[in-house]
Amino acid sequence: MNVSKEQLIRDMEDLFGPERVLKTDLERLTYTYDSSFVSQQKEYLPDVVVCLNSTESVSRLMKYAYEHEVPVTPRGAGSGQTGGSVPLKGGIVLDLSTWKDVEVDDANMQVIVRPGVVHAELNKILAPYNLFFPPDPGSSAMATIGGMVGNNASGLRAVKYGATFQYVLGLEVVLPNGEVIKTGGVKSKALKSVSGIDLTRLYCGSEGTLGVITQIRLKVQPKAPYRGIMLALFDKLEDSAYTVLDVFKVGLIPSGIEILDDGAIRCANTFKPELKIPEVEAALFFEINGSKAAVEAEGAEIKAIVEKRCCSVEWATDPERMTQLWQGRQVIGSASARYMPGKTRVFAGEDVCFPISKVPEALRRIKMLSKEFDIPVVIYGHIGDGNMHTAPIMDPLNPVEVEKTVKIADAIHRLALEMGGTTTGEHGVGFSRAEYMEEEHGKALDVMWAIKKAIDSKGIMNPGKIWQLGRE
Amino acid sequence: MNVSKEQLIRDMEDLFGPERVLKTDLERLTYTYDSSFVSQQKEYLPDVVVCLNSTESVSRLMKYAYEHEVPVTPRGAGSGQTGGSVPLKGGIVLDLSTWKDVEVDDANMQVIVRPGVVHAELNKILAPYNLFFPPDPGSSAMATIGGMVGNNASGLRAVKYGATFQYVLGLEVVLPNGEVIKTGGVKSKALKSVSGIDLTRLYCGSEGTLGVITQIRLKVQPKAPYRGIMLALFDKLEDSAYTVLDVFKVGLIPSGIEILDDGAIRCANTFKPELKIPEVEAALFFEINGSKAAVEAEGAEIKAIVEKRCCSVEWATDPERMTQLWQGRQVIGSASARYMPGKTRVFAGEDVCFPISKVPEALRRIKMLSKEFDIPVVIYGHIGDGNMHTAPIMDPLNPVEVEKTVKIADAIHRLALEMGGTTTGEHGVGFSRAEYMEEEHGKALDVMWAIKKAIDSKGIMNPGKIWQLGRE
Repeated sequence: MNVSKEQLIRDMEDLFGPERVLKTDLERLTYTYDSSFVSQQKEYLPDVVVCLNSTESVSRLMKYAYEHEVPVTPRGAGSGQTGGSVPLKGGIVLDLSTWKDVEVDDANMQVIVRPGVVHAELNKILAPYNLFFPPDPGSSAMATIGGMVGNNASGLRAVKYGATFQYVLGLEVVLPNGEVIKTGGVKSKALKSVSGIDLTRLYCGSEGTLGVITQIRLKVQPKAPYRGIMLALFDKLEDSAYTVLDVFKVGLIPSGIEILDDGAIRCANTFKPELKIPEVEAALFFEINGSKAAVEAEGAEIKAIVEKRCCSVEWATDPERMTQLWQGRQVIGSASARYMPGKTRVFAGEDVCFPISKVPEALRRIKMLSKEFDIPVVIYGHIGDGNMHTAPIMDPLNPVEVEKTVKIADAIHRLALEMGGTTTGEHGVGFSRAEYMEEEHGKALDVMWAIKKAIDSKGIMNPGKIWQLGRE
Repeated sequence: MNVSKEQLIRDMEDLFGPERVLKTDLERLTYTYDSSFVSQQKEYLPDVVVCLNSTESVSRLMKYAYEHEVPVTPRGAGSGQTGGSVPLKGGIVLDLSTWKDVEVDDANMQVIVRPGVVHAELNKILAPYNLFFPPDPGSSAMATIGGMVGNNASGLRAVKYGATFQYVLGLEVVLPNGEVIKTGGVKSKALKSVSGIDLTRLYCGSEGTLGVITQIRLKVQPKAPYRGIMLALFDKLEDSAYTVLDVFKVGLIPSGIEILDDGAIRCANTFKPELKIPEVEAALFFEINGSKAAVEAEGAEIKAIVEKRCCSVEWATDPERMTQLWQGRQVIGSASARYMPGKTRVFAGEDVCFPISKVPEALRRIKMLSKEFDIPVVIYGHIGDGNMHTAPIMDPLNPVEVEKTVKIADAIHRLALEMGGTTTGEHGVGFSRAEYMEEEHGKALDVMWAIKKAIDSKGIMNPGKIWQLGRE
C-alpha cells in the first residue's frame, strides 16, 4: 500500500462522497468479523469501508486500489463462516450489500441481479412468476447472491438441485486493475453455451480473490407444484446413513435429505420443547417435490424403504404439518447457539464433506473426537451429499475451551482429508481452511496460484484467502 | 519447434516404442480432419501421431514437447464438429482413444474413467448398477468421455440434466510442462466440494488448450425407473416453440425436448419411409422420465398443454412404440447426410443457441437465410434449451456451394450473436468459431488468454483453438 491510511480515507471520500465511506473505529469494527470462529480470535480492522452500488464506481475504486496497491476485500452480508470477507491486510472493505437491483426475464427463465440481493428476497420476487433459484442455503434470510456466487454456496436442496455454479450463466466482473468484463458472452441471454474458457465457473467459488462480481445472470427454474416432508427416526446413527444409500439405489432423488444426530435433536427440543422429537440417535428429514402424483408415489416408495431400518416414520403433505416437521431441521442453527447455558455454538471445522459411503463411519468418528477433546459436537446437515455441519458447543471466553475447539476443528478437517473427503463442502476456504489447501490439492494449488497471479498480478484482491498470507 | 520432423519421429519411437507411433502419410492423413466442414477445406497434417495410455507416458511426452516447443493436439474419437482435434500447426497428435479403463464406485455414486472410454460403453457398464451418466450426446456411440469433458458436451437430455461440467468431480491433468496434477482434491471421493479455485470446471470445455486430461472422476445418477415419449406435430413452426415455453410455465421439466423442422421431417421420411411422419412445419419429441406415477401424470399434463397448439399428438409408454417414435429423432444425423442425391450434410454453423424466448423468431430467420443463400438448411435439436442444430445440405465438391455454405454458416453465427445467443451451445469453438470469440466475449477473451499463458507459457497445447493462430 503506497498511500497512508489518512490519505486513503480522504481519497475515498473525494472519489465517492463521504456518505459512502465509513471511517470511524466503531464503524470499521463491524467489518472485522463474519460468522466464523477464526475471525473472532483476532481483530482484522480495515483502513476504510466503502459502500458502492454501480459498476462504474467499483471500477474507479479498483483502478485506485491497483495504482496504490491497496488490498480490497469485497463483502456481502458477512454471513460467511470462514473469514472470507474479513480484511486480513487492512485496506478497503468494499461493502456491496446495498446493491440490490433485480431484473426478472421470465420469458428466458433467468434473472439478472446485483450482488447485494438477499437469497430469500430473490425467491420472493420470483414467486409470482412461478420460478425459483434452487440453491437453498440455511442462511437464506441473510446471504447475498454475490456471496453465494463467491463461495459457490448450495445448502439444503443440493442433493437434487446442485450448487450455485450450475445456475450462473454469466457475470459482470471488475478486474483487479479496474477493467470491466462480462463472462458468458457480452450480450448473451442463452441458457447454454460452451464458447471459450469458462470464466463464469472460474469466478464461482473464487471468494473475491480474482476481482469484484458486480452483476450475476442466473438460470432459474419452474417451481415444483407439490411437495411432501418425511421425518424418520433411527435408534442407531449408522442406520440413518444406510437408509440414504438405500433410497438412492432404487433411483429416487429427493429434493432434500437432512440429518440431525442425538445432540442436534436435544438442541432442537431444548430450544422448542413443543417439537418433542424422540431422543433417538438420529433423525432424517426428506423433502420430496414434483407433480402431485410423483410426490405421492415417491413418498410412499421412500417410506417403504425407510421403514426397514427406522423406529418411527411420518409422511406429510399437509402444509401445516409439513411446516411443523420441517421446523425441527430449521431451528437447529439458532438452537445450537443456545443449547447449553454459558456456551455457544461456533463455526469451526463446520463444513466437512465425506464420500457418501463413508458417512456412517465419519459420524461415529466425529463423536469419538468430541469425547476425546471433551467438547460437545452437534452434527446436522446435508447427508444426501455427504456434507456434514459439525457444531462445537463451547465457551468462547474460556481460553482452555478455545484451545480445545481449535484442536477439534483441526482434527475434523484432517479426518475429512484422511477419509477421502474435503475440508469444505459449501462454505469455502476463507482463511480458516487455507492451511489445509496444500494437503488437499498438492501441486494443483500452484496452478490455482498461477491463475491468481495472471489475473491479480499485484495480489490486492482479498489477500490471505484460499492461499495463506506470505505466499505472494 | 526446435527439432526436425525426422528427429521428432525418432525420439517418439525411442520414448514410447515404434508400435505407439504413426508416421506414414496414410496414417497421419486420418488425423487431419474431424467431422467439421472447416477441417475438410484444407489439410492439416500432424508430423507424428502417438497413441498413449498411461499418465506416466503422457507426462514424458509433454516434458519432451515442452523442451522442444512441439505443438500437441490431444484427440479422442475425432467426432468433434469444430476442428478441435485437428493439428493446425503440425507437431504431435496425441491419440487417447485406446485408453479405456473404467472403475465403478457405485457406493459413492461415481465412476473413474480414462479419456478414451466411449459414452455408450460407459453407460452399458453402469447399467447393472442402476446408474447412468446423464449427458447424452447424439454421437454417444463414438464420443469419448475425454472429448466430452474437453468440449463440455451435453446433448438430448440437457434440458433436465445439464451439461458434462455438472458431473465432473475431479480430473487428473498433465500440464504443458509434463507435471501431473489432480483437480477436485488429491484423494477426494466427495460428491461436493468448494475447496479452492475450481480447476475442474476450468478444464471442462477448455478444448485441450490447457493440458491433457488423463483421468476423469464423474458423478453418476440412479437411473429413472420409467419413461414415456410424446410426438406432437405442428402446422406452424412457431407454435412448436411456444408450446415448449407453455410446458416450462407450469413447472414441468421433461428429460428431453427435441424439434425437427419440415426439412428434417422430410429427411427422416426419405431415409426411413416407414416412419411416415406427416410433413407439417415442425415435430416435437418429448421424453419424460421418473417414477411410473410421475411419468404417467406428467405425460397427461403435458399432453393437455401440447394439444392447445398442435395438430396431432401421440403419447407412448410401451417400449416398442417408444423406440419407433424416438427413431424419427434418432435417424436425423444419418438421414440429413443422405437426403439429396449428390449432396451431403455438413457441420458448419451447426450449434448456435438462442435465448429460448427468441427461438420462434430464430427458426424463421434461419429459414430466410436458407432462401437467401440458396442452401437448404435442415433444423433440428435441443429446443428445450434453445440449442439448434442447423444442417446445410450441399455438394462439398462444388466450389460455388462451398462458398455459399461458408457464407451461410457465418450468417447463422452472426444471427445468434445479434439475437443474444451464442455461437456454440455444446460443440465448442475449435477453430471453426475462433473468429467470433472477440465479438462474443469482448475483453473477457483477454482474461481467458492470460489464463492460457499462465498455464501454457510456450503455447504448445492445441494452438489455434478458441484463440486464432497469431495471437501468441
